[in-house]
Amino acid sequence: MDLMVKIKPERLLADLHELRKFGACGKGVVRTAFSQVDLDSRQWLIGKMTEVGLHVQVDVIGNVIGYSRNSGQALLMGSHTDTQPEGGWLDGSLGVIYALEVARTLLELPNTQYLAVDIASWMDEEGTFCGLLGSRSFCGKISPKVIANAKDRSGLTLTEVIHAAGLNEVPVARIDPGRYVAYLEAHIEQGARLVSAKKRIGVVTAIVGIRSFKLVFTGEQNHAGTTPMQLRKDAGMALIRLANDIDATYGKISGDTTVWTIGHVKFEPGSHSIVPGHAEMMLQFRDPDSQLLDRFEAVLYDLVATGKKTGPVEITIEPLGAPIPPAFMDDGLQEHIVRAAETHAPGDWIRMPSGAGHDAMVFADILPTAMLFVPSIGGISHSFAEDTKEEDIVLGCQVFATAAASILKAHI
Amino acid sequence: MDLMVKIKPERLLADLHELRKFGACGKGVVRTAFSQVDLDSRQWLIGKMTEVGLHVQVDVIGNVIGYSRNSGQALLMGSHTDTQPEGGWLDGSLGVIYALEVARTLLELPNTQYLAVDIASWMDEEGTFCGLLGSRSFCGKISPKVIANAKDRSGLTLTEVIHAAGLNEVPVARIDPGRYVAYLEAHIEQGARLVSAKKRIGVVTAIVGIRSFKLVFTGEQNHAGTTPMQLRKDAGMALIRLANDIDATYGKISGDTTVWTIGHVKFEPGSHSIVPGHAEMMLQFRDPDSQLLDRFEAVLYDLVATGKKTGPVEITIEPLGAPIPPAFMDDGLQEHIVRAAETHAPGDWIRMPSGAGHDAMVFADILPTAMLFVPSIGGISHSFAEDTKEEDIVLGCQVFATAAASILKAHI
Repeated sequence: MDLMVKIKPERLLADLHELRKFGACGKGVVRTAFSQVDLDSRQWLIGKMTEVGLHVQVDVIGNVIGYSRNSGQALLMGSHTDTQPEGGWLDGSLGVIYALEVARTLLELPNTQYLAVDIASWMDEEGTFCGLLGSRSFCGKISPKVIANAKDRSGLTLTEVIHAAGLNEVPVARIDPGRYVAYLEAHIEQGARLVSAKKRIGVVTAIVGIRSFKLVFTGEQNHAGTTPMQLRKDAGMALIRLANDIDATYGKISGDTTVWTIGHVKFEPGSHSIVPGHAEMMLQFRDPDSQLLDRFEAVLYDLVATGKKTGPVEITIEPLGAPIPPAFMDDGLQEHIVRAAETHAPGDWIRMPSGAGHDAMVFADILPTAMLFVPSIGGISHSFAEDTKEEDIVLGCQVFATAAASILKAHI
Repeated sequence: MDLMVKIKPERLLADLHELRKFGACGKGVVRTAFSQVDLDSRQWLIGKMTEVGLHVQVDVIGNVIGYSRNSGQALLMGSHTDTQPEGGWLDGSLGVIYALEVARTLLELPNTQYLAVDIASWMDEEGTFCGLLGSRSFCGKISPKVIANAKDRSGLTLTEVIHAAGLNEVPVARIDPGRYVAYLEAHIEQGARLVSAKKRIGVVTAIVGIRSFKLVFTGEQNHAGTTPMQLRKDAGMALIRLANDIDATYGKISGDTTVWTIGHVKFEPGSHSIVPGHAEMMLQFRDPDSQLLDRFEAVLYDLVATGKKTGPVEITIEPLGAPIPPAFMDDGLQEHIVRAAETHAPGDWIRMPSGAGHDAMVFADILPTAMLFVPSIGGISHSFAEDTKEEDIVLGCQVFATAAASILKAHI
């Protein structure tokens, strides 16, 4: 008989709902990185990790990491507890509480209690200050300059909030790759692939690469009645024309899995009777194919160059954060998850790519890495309406726990 | 010899600069209707009007009106002292202080001191709560329902600010058309026509009609990585496509004087990694030709209907405030201004339409109405950079005073 580890569903769900209270807002959660509710939730998490008997470290960047006191190589499991400005209750939180439940389940069972599981909540995956901040910092993949320059959209700096949280004197936590067998992360799918396929577990094959850009248009603010069309330097209209061109061109060169989004647009001063003198937009595109990402980026820069040449509005473009390369999940680890899924829910799983970025992508070139997905109702995420069926939440953790034990046992 | 009235340039400039201090922000002014600095500036203006010997009334809507104590028909002169969210120092203020300077100049001179001049600052010309609010209220052209529903972009209601200003028990001021010979208003041009023509005085022939609309796009907020393009209901992208179509179509059917502006665009939630579920934009167009305005409006509604049919994003459209019809200036009054301009600056004037709306347009079907423009440096307005040469400010008031005396003397 295959290995089968039994988690405690009530305890898992109770912890998820307790964490949900920090920043609860209707059905959703507003718990952006370094907000007071985020800091409060980390204190709560420290308590939970300590109860389990882990040695807890909070590092300068706000990562909360619970280290196993068992000897031997460990499994590192985690995700994030910060949310989008209008976040769902499971995005990130699910993976952290799964990790907690797996750690304590293995410690409770006689045939697994010697296994070492470290668990973590990585700071600011959602990019309030800097996307994937915590995991990148832990993996030594972020420069002090990026951290020094990071700020939120109101202009608050990361340095300020680190000081305000009393973390500035605390050391940074860095990965010891020799300590770990693998990195595992569970997450809600955040899309509709599992729901469409009527499957309950997703075994992730790869995480798409992501490139984001900020475009700034500088024209001349003027009166909307007295400035003839031919004399205008309308930053807003320049933005609309370029955005429309980008979208039309991308539609012709995209692959099956490519997505692109203009999620933010702002006109200044933003009055109906003033020609905007300033406008800005944020554009992001994703695909597992780096060459396709290159083509998208080249087209973008070409269209900006054409727009600048045509005038009369100045256009600047800069990457928004570092580009995130596609990350491939470890084949061997995928097999462990597949076997665990077959054990608990035979035939009820599929292999799939991840359209969303995750902390796991940061680990993929340092440790063998894998991810497990559970379905998102209606495919909805980054929204207060985000949810997952209770039985899917429980099944996902069950599969995750069995896979974790199986991976550790195979290795040690 | 033609009539010539001499104003006091130092006094005029001193008052303009004193008024500028209320809400000064760099070179510009932030003095939106019913803000504390706006209310403070009205107290200052009441003091100025009282000094001149006028009987001052502040009405329920915040209009400040100084009535002459002289008998006989009067000339009504005014403009507004409220500003845009990022306003220039002369937009509106120039006309109010010109009116003040003309009133006191005529009262000081032996051959004009019997003439009656009423002066006013009309509330909220710029539309913080409701465009042309004060002049429309004074002329009985605004319904109680519109006033009851008026609110600023933060959701603050006009009713609330009227109460907060302690004006709710004060009666409304209404025009007595029989009292007046004419309505006169001076204003900065806010465009570059005078500068281009190298002329210092504009005699306005007509004011363009204005129609404004708010479009709301309702899609489905979702994750920018996990939602395939074909399943998106992207409110932001729907806005960009429609805005681009509107602009392209208008470019084909516009006249020489037509202008159109998308001054405000907002995506929600406005994150670079979230497909916007909600977007809104404000569109405005202007022309002196009502039939052209009708065509523009028909095209707009057609494009919205096509967008709704195409889907998948819901689109609603509604007029933003009442449409403003074109207004024509009185020929006889224009002649008086032309003669005054010839007296003080021979050959240095032109006739021109106004691309901007003004309180004068509200009066044009009730009283013979006329407007005088002074040049705007670089044609810049609705901007902190807005300015007019000091000698042009002085000349404009000089011409305005002589024209006012000439109009009153011709009539009485």
